[in-house]
Amino acid sequence: MGKIILLRHGQSQWNLENRFTGWTDVELTDRGREEARQAGVKIKEAGLEPCYYFTSYLKRAIHTLQIAAAAMGRDWVPVVKDWHLNERHYGALQGLNKAETAEKYGAEQVHEWRRSFDVMPPLLSSDDERFPGNDPKYASLTADELPLSESLQDTIARVRPCWEELIVPALRLYGTVLVAAHGNSLRGLAMMMQHLTAREIVSVEIPTGKPWVFELDERMQVVKNYYL
Amino acid sequence: MGKIILLRHGQSQWNLENRFTGWTDVELTDRGREEARQAGVKIKEAGLEPCYYFTSYLKRAIHTLQIAAAAMGRDWVPVVKDWHLNERHYGALQGLNKAETAEKYGAEQVHEWRRSFDVMPPLLSSDDERFPGNDPKYASLTADELPLSESLQDTIARVRPCWEELIVPALRLYGTVLVAAHGNSLRGLAMMMQHLTAREIVSVEIPTGKPWVFELDERMQVVKNYYL
Repeated sequence: MGKIILLRHGQSQWNLENRFTGWTDVELTDRGREEARQAGVKIKEAGLEPCYYFTSYLKRAIHTLQIAAAAMGRDWVPVVKDWHLNERHYGALQGLNKAETAEKYGAEQVHEWRRSFDVMPPLLSSDDERFPGNDPKYASLTADELPLSESLQDTIARVRPCWEELIVPALRLYGTVLVAAHGNSLRGLAMMMQHLTAREIVSVEIPTGKPWVFELDERMQVVKNYYL
Repeated sequence: MGKIILLRHGQSQWNLENRFTGWTDVELTDRGREEARQAGVKIKEAGLEPCYYFTSYLKRAIHTLQIAAAAMGRDWVPVVKDWHLNERHYGALQGLNKAETAEKYGAEQVHEWRRSFDVMPPLLSSDDERFPGNDPKYASLTADELPLSESLQDTIARVRPCWEELIVPALRLYGTVLVAAHGNSLRGLAMMMQHLTAREIVSVEIPTGKPWVFELDERMQVVKNYYL
């Protein structure tokens, strides 16, 4: 009935620097761009022809999509950019080095922030320059929608309307779609499609630059899934 | 009331090779990519913040837009890709070298094909691999919409619905929009906005990579226009 390809962006500048990124809008590295290109080649070689693209408001995902689309020879395919597909917001941890944060707060605390389902990292204050309400690209969001921090659960909750209102209709209309986004927003899609529990989803690690294909029946139930 | 920025794509591989391009989907050259980047820098330095992008189905325009958007720091802005903004279809001349074509048909004939308002170059046959009906990206077009060749008048006629149904509404909603497209589809927009005659529009030459700004009042009449 339909196929959805999940693509996690390749290496970004802050992956390289081992910093918490979240909604910080950092660039891909050359290696990240090469991962994106190879992902596009794999999708093309698999004979998949996505007819609708989805991505986030963050350039590491947008550029991953653009580079993969060029490698597929499918630059012309329509794209929806949706902030609901952004990475999990990492609150006051955004910009901090992960090793330094572990030294300061303890490895156990950092592990809980990173790997639990419903624990939020420390909140940003709304006058912090990192608060999305101070970024013009989020000017259309309501106060409720602007995060000060997010648990994985919060991230998945805001991914849901994008899935239900945009991605599922596109799957029904177009058959094959590609979503280029982030580790945690893609976990949200995987959790919804595979009906995973909180305990199960926290242990799912989605590799970067490796297209993850879900084949769905007409009730949007997963028939099979595999990496390219 | 609103501002529209017209941006003609930079140098493509076939500009460099002096070939008729039309709907052939050729790449930008490195120089073309640099023109696009500089255009984005100029738009940003002018303090313009487009909130909606339009481009064609052809990668030389799509990539020009993507590169300019990155240079502006506005990758996240929504984009509509519309085949109505494609370059004029050059019929059976597509792919031919311009100098060789002039030798074969005479400079006067080539000048008439290139510079008249209502003369079409020789038609493609529908079994020609260059016919858009044989390209999957135009699969959604009706038989009437698939050109075998176009005069400038034909091109402008098919640009009109994109202007009326997509660009004008976006101008009203968002204030500033950017259209990254081609010499002849942009002529169409300029002709409509400036109420030019056929004689006037054929003498308008839009430079590549140089953003052309139109300030419009609420009835979409041009208040002023200038290049950045």
